[in-house]
Parts: sequence; structure tokens; C-alpha cells
Amino acid sequence: MDRARRRRPRVTEDRITLAHGAGGKATQTLVEAVFLAQFDNPALAELADAASLSVDGAKLAFTTDSYVVSPLFFPGGDIGELAVNGTVNDLAVCGAQPLYLSAGFVLEEGFPLADLRRIVASMSSAAAAAGVQLVTGDTKVVQRGKADGCYITTSGLGRCPAGRRLGVGELRAGDAVLVSGPIGEHGVTVLLARGELEIDAELRSDTTALNQLTEGLLNSGATVRVMRDATRGGVATVLNELAAAAGLAVVLDEPAIPVHPAVRGAGELLGIDPLYLACEGRLVAVVDRAGVDSALAAMRARPEGEQAAVIGQVAADPPGLVLLKTEFGGTRIVDVLVGDPLPRIC
Amino acid sequence: MDRARRRRPRVTEDRITLAHGAGGKATQTLVEAVFLAQFDNPALAELADAASLSVDGAKLAFTTDSYVVSPLFFPGGDIGELAVNGTVNDLAVCGAQPLYLSAGFVLEEGFPLADLRRIVASMSSAAAAAGVQLVTGDTKVVQRGKADGCYITTSGLGRCPAGRRLGVGELRAGDAVLVSGPIGEHGVTVLLARGELEIDAELRSDTTALNQLTEGLLNSGATVRVMRDATRGGVATVLNELAAAAGLAVVLDEPAIPVHPAVRGAGELLGIDPLYLACEGRLVAVVDRAGVDSALAAMRARPEGEQAAVIGQVAADPPGLVLLKTEFGGTRIVDVLVGDPLPRIC
Repeated sequence: MDRARRRRPRVTEDRITLAHGAGGKATQTLVEAVFLAQFDNPALAELADAASLSVDGAKLAFTTDSYVVSPLFFPGGDIGELAVNGTVNDLAVCGAQPLYLSAGFVLEEGFPLADLRRIVASMSSAAAAAGVQLVTGDTKVVQRGKADGCYITTSGLGRCPAGRRLGVGELRAGDAVLVSGPIGEHGVTVLLARGELEIDAELRSDTTALNQLTEGLLNSGATVRVMRDATRGGVATVLNELAAAAGLAVVLDEPAIPVHPAVRGAGELLGIDPLYLACEGRLVAVVDRAGVDSALAAMRARPEGEQAAVIGQVAADPPGLVLLKTEFGGTRIVDVLVGDPLPRIC
Repeated sequence: MDRARRRRPRVTEDRITLAHGAGGKATQTLVEAVFLAQFDNPALAELADAASLSVDGAKLAFTTDSYVVSPLFFPGGDIGELAVNGTVNDLAVCGAQPLYLSAGFVLEEGFPLADLRRIVASMSSAAAAAGVQLVTGDTKVVQRGKADGCYITTSGLGRCPAGRRLGVGELRAGDAVLVSGPIGEHGVTVLLARGELEIDAELRSDTTALNQLTEGLLNSGATVRVMRDATRGGVATVLNELAAAAGLAVVLDEPAIPVHPAVRGAGELLGIDPLYLACEGRLVAVVDRAGVDSALAAMRARPEGEQAAVIGQVAADPPGLVLLKTEFGGTRIVDVLVGDPLPRIC
């Protein structure tokens, strides 16, 4: 479906709400009604995780993300690691090889230097692990009470090797849908770190760079149709975007979806399906059915993909919808997220 | 002077202060002690306005800046226009041709949609005027009281035409120092918009894209040594950085420096030399003495450079210092800014 030809949605609210930042329906409406209405160019109109560009013959991918996670430090990571991995992943899922990052810091007056050092050290480790260099940056300071410690915006630049043809236009009925590991651990870990849940669980954020995993998958021999990282809005949101854009269905097999018991428990407490919980290091990939074994083997060969699983498939009907075949033999629609049950998760 | 061989300065404070964001001595110390200590690569170590990169044979420039200006709207511009022009200018002063921008928004819950639309429309106009495309973006929302309406981080990507040799290493005693127009108007305009000064003046921000001006200058026949845009910390800060890095002196001729009378008046009220007041559309260029007439003519040929002037020259002594020959025949040192008299000016 060509987004440019669709009628633009309208934002009905007069003021920004947390839902506008949640990555679901409200975010999508805001982006289309406010941003695409002003910036009309093919690269942006694709609304991909990264823009595809060409400069003097070089094929490049360019992306940006702002990070406002609260708390700044949580088991398994912190805002700095998240900011590096998230931007690396936005490049990687477009089939690009991440090379360079920038970082813009907005710091609150009074923010402890020790915390800043810790964040910067973790950015440095994450960049080294992903094989990227942070080459430019900026720091601004606002008065006490005008930020929440530290916000970071990272942008990333990668190269796009020739011959990689990824995109929702490539999806075919019968394709397999894979996920690289258990879902929702980042979201629940951040909530636990806020003390908002009465659960005592040994969970860690799943934040990790996916570029080595995507390279392995792309070189596995499988025909990779499209890749996404399931962040805000979780796997459900990513798959809804794919289904809507391709005009195809995605049918998920609930028992096949890897979910840590503590994530399932938290989801039940919150009344949120783990499919909507944010991951920060989980790849969703759609591959040609014939290549599924090679794809799975390539993902499982990496530590960050060792629990990879086939969780469903693409189907012709009903177009634009995501269905879930439940453990009990039923089928239900997995809709787009409305509102923001979990603000500031990344 | 090779920064890598200098002993790293130490941050003596335990907490971030507004001065760390002011662009002066405290910012420089923070950047060297915290960021360069962790991210050790040649592109970053140059601390240029943009990093110079090479991808598959293409020579690129990459930069980022966060914008936290208060108020968001002021005579002559707003945060959106500032965010586009500032990033375009960081590329332009490195001799690059700006092509693509990204934008990351951090919005406060409750921020009026009408204000966001106005900001985005002004970003769109500024991008069109500068000939760049905004190709990727991100929006996050934080709770009420966790931001000040809207912060924007823009990153920019440009191409570097072959044969442009710019840098502090090119400076020679005898070179001329030029500025493209009157200084400090942005800084004073923002202060007036806050109601912090008892002055009634018809000032407008000088925010503008400088990439057409820099192209004109680079094609003028003059040998351009180095270019900078004088933002936080003003012309004095830029020239101090050049003098220190080159191990040469800059000698300014006070009567030659273009300053609007209202800016001079505000500076006297505030006790701040206009040389320290931020501009957001003023180029500082150092050119070979032989090319000064061509350079001046090229700058004055553009509307944003019509009040361009030669304001001083590079000298051998005293190395690392900026001197001002005053209107009354005296000479004084123009030192690096300490502290932050004017927070959140950009």
C-alpha cells in the first residue's frame, strides 16, 4: 500500500499525550498528520527504521532515535547502552552495516557526574561490541526540573551492501515469521526497576546490538524478506505494521512464542499481552519458507539468537490483520496498541 | 597543538552545572574529560563542527546538535528553524554541502499540537531554503514537568567535495579574519523574548542557513583557511579555539566589528561583551590576506552576508591568545568564557 496515496489521518487532540510517544496508533497518526504533512520526500515517506540514501555512489542508511527511559539504570543495561544498541539495530534491520554514531545529550542541572561517566562508559562498551564508532556529539544543559536527569539522541550512519532487497513489498503468503529470542524482557525489567510491580524476578533487559545477527541471517542462504526490531509496542506493533503495509495477514502460533515466565506473569498482572511489551534486542524476521531452517540455524549460532524460534507465518487472508492461534485452539485478532500502558520504556 | 598529546583536564564538580552546556571552558573540560576519555577515535578527537568520514569512497561530513532554546518562539525564528539551520551550518563550515537531516523530538505531555505544527512547518521552510531534506525522525513524550515543552536534536549528513583543505593547521600569520554580519543578535533577541531585559529594541534573531554563503566563499578564489559559525559563546569563543589550536594569535580591531546598537546596549546592561553573545547565522572565516577582497565581495553578494566585514587578523604573537585593539587605542585580552551568563540560548 502506498502511504502517499492514503488519506492523511488527523490528530484529534489539542495537546500531546503520552500515547503520542508510545509507538502505537497515536504515534503513527502524529507522524503522518504532522511530520509527513510537512516533509514530503520519498526517503521519509517510507517510514522505515532508517532512511536509504545515496551520496556520490555510496549507498547509505541514516537513522535517529531519542532515549528518555526511566530509570536511567536498570538490570542488564542503562540509557547509554540502549541509545547505542537501538540506533545500531535500526540500521541493521534495514540490511545496513552500522558504521558511525552521533550522540546529543540533554542534561539536567545537578545531574551527577558519576552517573554521566557511567552512561558514557557503557555507550563506549556497547559501541565497541557492535563495531561502530561514536564520531560526533553535543551536550546541552537545562535548569533543574526541566529534564529528568539525562536524555540522549543518537543518530547512526551505515553502509548498504549491494543486492540486499528487503522491504514489506517482498512479503509472500507462506513466509515464516521468526523472532530471535524471548520477548518483552526489556519492558518488564524497566517496570520492575521503577518499583511499579510487586514481582520479584531475576529479569534483565534484552538490550543488545543485532548487527552481527542480521549479517549472519542475511548470509545464511535464506531469502530474508524483511527485518524489524521489536521496540516500543513490541512484536505485535511491528507485525501489525508489516501486515498493514503488505496487505497480507500474519498468523501467530501462541505456544511457539518464547516468553520468560516472569514476563508472562507481569503481563497478566498488568493486563498486557507480552506481544506488546518492548524488547531492545530482539529481531523479528520474515523469511522465505524454504530458507527457514538455514535462517533459524544462523540465528541460533549467535548468543543473542540462541533461543530463536519460528512464531508464525504470513497468509493471504485476512489482509492487514495479525491473528493469534491460542494455546487452547482459538484464534483472536492482535490489534494495534492504543494508548500508552508503559511510558518511557526506551 | 595535538589534543591527543595534551594532558586531559579534570572535571572538578560532582554535578552538572549550566556552565557545562554553555560552550565555554566548562563544556570543553567536560567533553575532553568525560567523552574523549571514552571515545577515542580520530574523527571525534578533532572536535570539529562535523566529523569527516569516508564510506565506500564517498567523503562525508556528519554532525549533531541538541536544541533546548527558551522560549521556543522568538522574533525572527523558533526552535525548529534553529535546529535545521544550526545543523546545516555545522556541515557548511567544514566545507561540506549539507544534504540530509534527521530530527529527534522530546515532547512534554500537554505540549500544544498547534505549537508542534508551527515548529515543524518552520523546520520544513528552513530545510527547503537550505536545500536539504529531512529524511528520518523520532518522537518521544515525557510526563508533564519532565521537559520544557519541546527539545529537538538534529543530525546532518553532507558531502565533502574533493580539494577543500580547511582546518586550523592551515592558519598563517597575516591571514584576515572576517565575519559575515553583525554579531550577537540571536542571543539578545532570545533574552528580550524572555522579558529578562528592560530594553525595547527591534531586534530579530540572525538564524539563517550559511551553506550558500560558504559555497560562495569557497568558490570566490580566496584561499579559505578555516570557517566557523559563532554560536554558544559567540565570536570570542570561536576565535579562542582557533588561536589555541593553531598556536597563533588573533588580533581584533574593535571599531571594525559590526554590532547593532541595541546589542551593544544590551551587552552594557548585562556586562557582557557582544563578542560573547551567540549568533545563529554568522560565519567567521579566516582567509589568506591576498584573497580578502574576493572573499568580502563573495560574502556581500549574499543577503545573509551583506554586512560582512574584516574584523582582524592572525598574528604570530602572543601564541594562543585573542587580543582586541579597542576604539581608544588600547589592547586587551579576549579570554575564554567561564560560566554561563546566558543559558538555553540555542
